[in-house]
Amino acid sequence: MARNVLNENKISDATVRRLSLYYRSLKYAYDRGMRTISSQELADMNNLTAAQVRKDLSFFGAFGRRGLGYYVADLQRNIARILGINKTWNVALVGAGNIGRALLDYDQFRQQGFLIKVIFDNDPQKIGKTFHGLEVKDFDDAAEEIRQHKIKIAIIAVPAQFAQQVVDRLVEYRIKAILNFAPITLQVPDHISVRNENMAIEIEALSFALTNRKEPTRTMPG
Amino acid sequence: MARNVLNENKISDATVRRLSLYYRSLKYAYDRGMRTISSQELADMNNLTAAQVRKDLSFFGAFGRRGLGYYVADLQRNIARILGINKTWNVALVGAGNIGRALLDYDQFRQQGFLIKVIFDNDPQKIGKTFHGLEVKDFDDAAEEIRQHKIKIAIIAVPAQFAQQVVDRLVEYRIKAILNFAPITLQVPDHISVRNENMAIEIEALSFALTNRKEPTRTMPG
Repeated sequence: MARNVLNENKISDATVRRLSLYYRSLKYAYDRGMRTISSQELADMNNLTAAQVRKDLSFFGAFGRRGLGYYVADLQRNIARILGINKTWNVALVGAGNIGRALLDYDQFRQQGFLIKVIFDNDPQKIGKTFHGLEVKDFDDAAEEIRQHKIKIAIIAVPAQFAQQVVDRLVEYRIKAILNFAPITLQVPDHISVRNENMAIEIEALSFALTNRKEPTRTMPG
Repeated sequence: MARNVLNENKISDATVRRLSLYYRSLKYAYDRGMRTISSQELADMNNLTAAQVRKDLSFFGAFGRRGLGYYVADLQRNIARILGINKTWNVALVGAGNIGRALLDYDQFRQQGFLIKVIFDNDPQKIGKTFHGLEVKDFDDAAEEIRQHKIKIAIIAVPAQFAQQVVDRLVEYRIKAILNFAPITLQVPDHISVRNENMAIEIEALSFALTNRKEPTRTMPG
């Protein structure tokens, strides 16, 4: 069985990322009627090796049964607990621009238990407006709102030049974890977790692939 | 010097991702007047070890000089060429919903040379409307538009249930690389590159950290 408290330092970011992918694969498999799944099947669904899957899951104890594989529902439940998505998290969103508004309507957050409870901006043109049922509040009132909604996670969707000062204030208001959409590296105290969401990084992996691989289509017309 | 053609299979996704980060760090350093940089400095800017930085860069030849480090401008230019972001790429965006519209206005794409030249939807309510100066076209006309703009990269920002059929048609229209925002695993032929942008995955790394680490603040009030 999984232990509830892990030594986070032993688990790499890449492993945590893959756990999120396994969780989605298990959900997909369960919805299609599968009740057991092999490490090879999980690997195939994610372009990984079976050995990688077994290694990732072994950090958390032995879920599988030799010859049978994993019980889909059990493994899904265990991974949800490990990732902390077996409960809901209240989230604050800072920035009511294009990205902020897109995130308000992003089903994946809600489905995984991340509930945006409040949205802030400092633009008088935006404060008081309602997007997707949520009224934009003045960032100057953030301390009180964050306390009231017991919020530990904030999403930063403000222009780069404002991101650091926003984060400094959020840290002061006892936010513990930050998902950053601003294209800068944030400076935070050690006890604050930050993940950066840079949508241009994934697309650069595509230009890398197009630039460097020997394309089988290179010799074809068109 | 970097070779222009690499064996893509030898370079992991994680390495390519870090190259994108190094590129940003170098830009940041150059803008602040730094002309040389050590692997340790590059490592510190990205929470990595200097050995990791040197290993990543060694795949592409030896850019550094012992005792001096790397020339910032040279290394930036070399990484740009490796990533294929030393030129511009015309991009098609499919889906004019919230995420699609946020992406139209996402400076990072433009800055890295990814130019969204055309946006498609199949919703008559959206076709013909203009967002950020770009008119939404009917996806039924995609073949002609993609050919005309010489587009190889497409971004999928449609609801999950439509994503696979959209991709099948894009492959038919000779798109070579896909950035997918839909929360499903796309099935594509081997010669097509796909990267999935799932914004909920990064936030799960935060709930993981909040759930599993021993917080130094646990013993404090509040």
